[in-house]
Amino acid sequence: MSEHAARPAQPEPVLPVLAIVGVGLIGGSFAAALRQAGVVGRVLGVGRNPETLDQALRRGLIDAAATLEEAGAQADFILIATPVGAVGATLARLKPCLRPETVISDACSTKADVIAAARAALGDRIGQFVPGHPIAGAEQTGPAAADAQLYRGRNVILTPLMENPAAARKLVSRLWKACGARILTLDPATHDTVLASVSHVPHFLSSVFMWQVAMASDADVRMALAGSGFRDFTRISAGSAEVWRDIFLSNKDAVLNELQEVKAALSKAEQALQAGDGRELEDFLERAALARRLWASRSGLS
Amino acid sequence: MSEHAARPAQPEPVLPVLAIVGVGLIGGSFAAALRQAGVVGRVLGVGRNPETLDQALRRGLIDAAATLEEAGAQADFILIATPVGAVGATLARLKPCLRPETVISDACSTKADVIAAARAALGDRIGQFVPGHPIAGAEQTGPAAADAQLYRGRNVILTPLMENPAAARKLVSRLWKACGARILTLDPATHDTVLASVSHVPHFLSSVFMWQVAMASDADVRMALAGSGFRDFTRISAGSAEVWRDIFLSNKDAVLNELQEVKAALSKAEQALQAGDGRELEDFLERAALARRLWASRSGLS
Repeated sequence: MSEHAARPAQPEPVLPVLAIVGVGLIGGSFAAALRQAGVVGRVLGVGRNPETLDQALRRGLIDAAATLEEAGAQADFILIATPVGAVGATLARLKPCLRPETVISDACSTKADVIAAARAALGDRIGQFVPGHPIAGAEQTGPAAADAQLYRGRNVILTPLMENPAAARKLVSRLWKACGARILTLDPATHDTVLASVSHVPHFLSSVFMWQVAMASDADVRMALAGSGFRDFTRISAGSAEVWRDIFLSNKDAVLNELQEVKAALSKAEQALQAGDGRELEDFLERAALARRLWASRSGLS
Repeated sequence: MSEHAARPAQPEPVLPVLAIVGVGLIGGSFAAALRQAGVVGRVLGVGRNPETLDQALRRGLIDAAATLEEAGAQADFILIATPVGAVGATLARLKPCLRPETVISDACSTKADVIAAARAALGDRIGQFVPGHPIAGAEQTGPAAADAQLYRGRNVILTPLMENPAAARKLVSRLWKACGARILTLDPATHDTVLASVSHVPHFLSSVFMWQVAMASDADVRMALAGSGFRDFTRISAGSAEVWRDIFLSNKDAVLNELQEVKAALSKAEQALQAGDGRELEDFLERAALARRLWASRSGLS
């Protein structure tokens, strides 16, 4: 309720100025969702590729292209949606021009590594950085794939720092909720080991498999006979090579550990097949099938 | 054009009596598609589970439940859509009551093994059996999942035998075309090695991975944070354990060989990650991504 009769009808948005660093699928969808929810005023887009920024402008995802320095000086909230490997340098360049009330978050798929980079880059301003990770994506990349609905019903994991003021955490939660997401809080190490298992390792295996098929001398025949199982199993391998390179490097130990576990399970299953042990094979397939069906019924994702 | 004025307006269908052995997703969808195409008269369903047959009856996929012996004596065409391991026994029971003009085909995912079992069971009647494999499926199983559109635009591979009369091959092709499918002809060994690569190995890996996640002590947290990549990568693991047990056993050598190739590729990728070699990692991810995107644009499946 305004006490000034002359005040314009439109209330000030929650976020007068939002800046997105990296206006691809993830950053562009965040901007689109916040705009649709009416919680954002002006949106600045920062990126290394002028064509991508142009495309984001034309799609109405951002209002203007900006430098990192302009974003730091003007934005109330900055989302870093670059590949993991670029977060440290981005924050280091932001620091000198950053207003003390600006809140920064990220959308990176690993957290321990990102937090270490953020601490190194931001120093005593680390409290302004609230680490986050939306569990959402698509095989398409770039601003053309941005979708205001991408985060609807999806989980966003926050791994807040003890230096984060309550107001900063609250703002980040509020923005993701405005995108339709559910908020979960985890410690960074748990986040990274769990995500190594359910996100990074599947991507690694899917890419390895796709690579192996594509490199075969009879790849053409194989591809011609590939059906919907192949389609589903390899879908994630079409994702951005740069983004995933950074994720794997950034979460290297957890990914390598988890791959050992998967290889142990694979050996066991291979031995059952080698031995022609139908009973053991069926048992393992049945447990996998039941677990997958249960997950589908609970996750709302299938 | 009829020369008898009194003849009913409806022409005799291509197939007066169709029998489906195993009225699940594959058999039920075949019946539904042929019925929709108007090429089939009466449909008999054969199966070991009375509830499944009841469900197929209620869904209108079949007109009556029948024994194998009744199917052999009455059907013009019989599709065997059971797990691979049941084909030999099914054909052996059919043989004594089989009319000489009846054509039989199957929908099994392996061909060399099925052909060997068919030769053993049918002996001098082997010419009546035209081996086939529709490259289609879904994670749902049973008659409830049957869909007249399942085969539309999909490949059906035939691996005909030298004993098959031209008319028998032609009938099988015609029926699958009536379902909307494309027909490809291959030799059984090529079929089995190619399918080991693009269908059986992905299923094996997806199931191994799903099993490994489900068996972890923190499986609940993992499942709760699994997103759309996990969903796609594990979708096939929800398939029928019995069907896939038989496929793996039936194509054991080709599957084990192909798994060796995948493991070699995995080792290479793991070494690059272990060494922190971002260039090699990105190169392999990029090749996989480009191959997958090219496949998607060509296959019409993504």
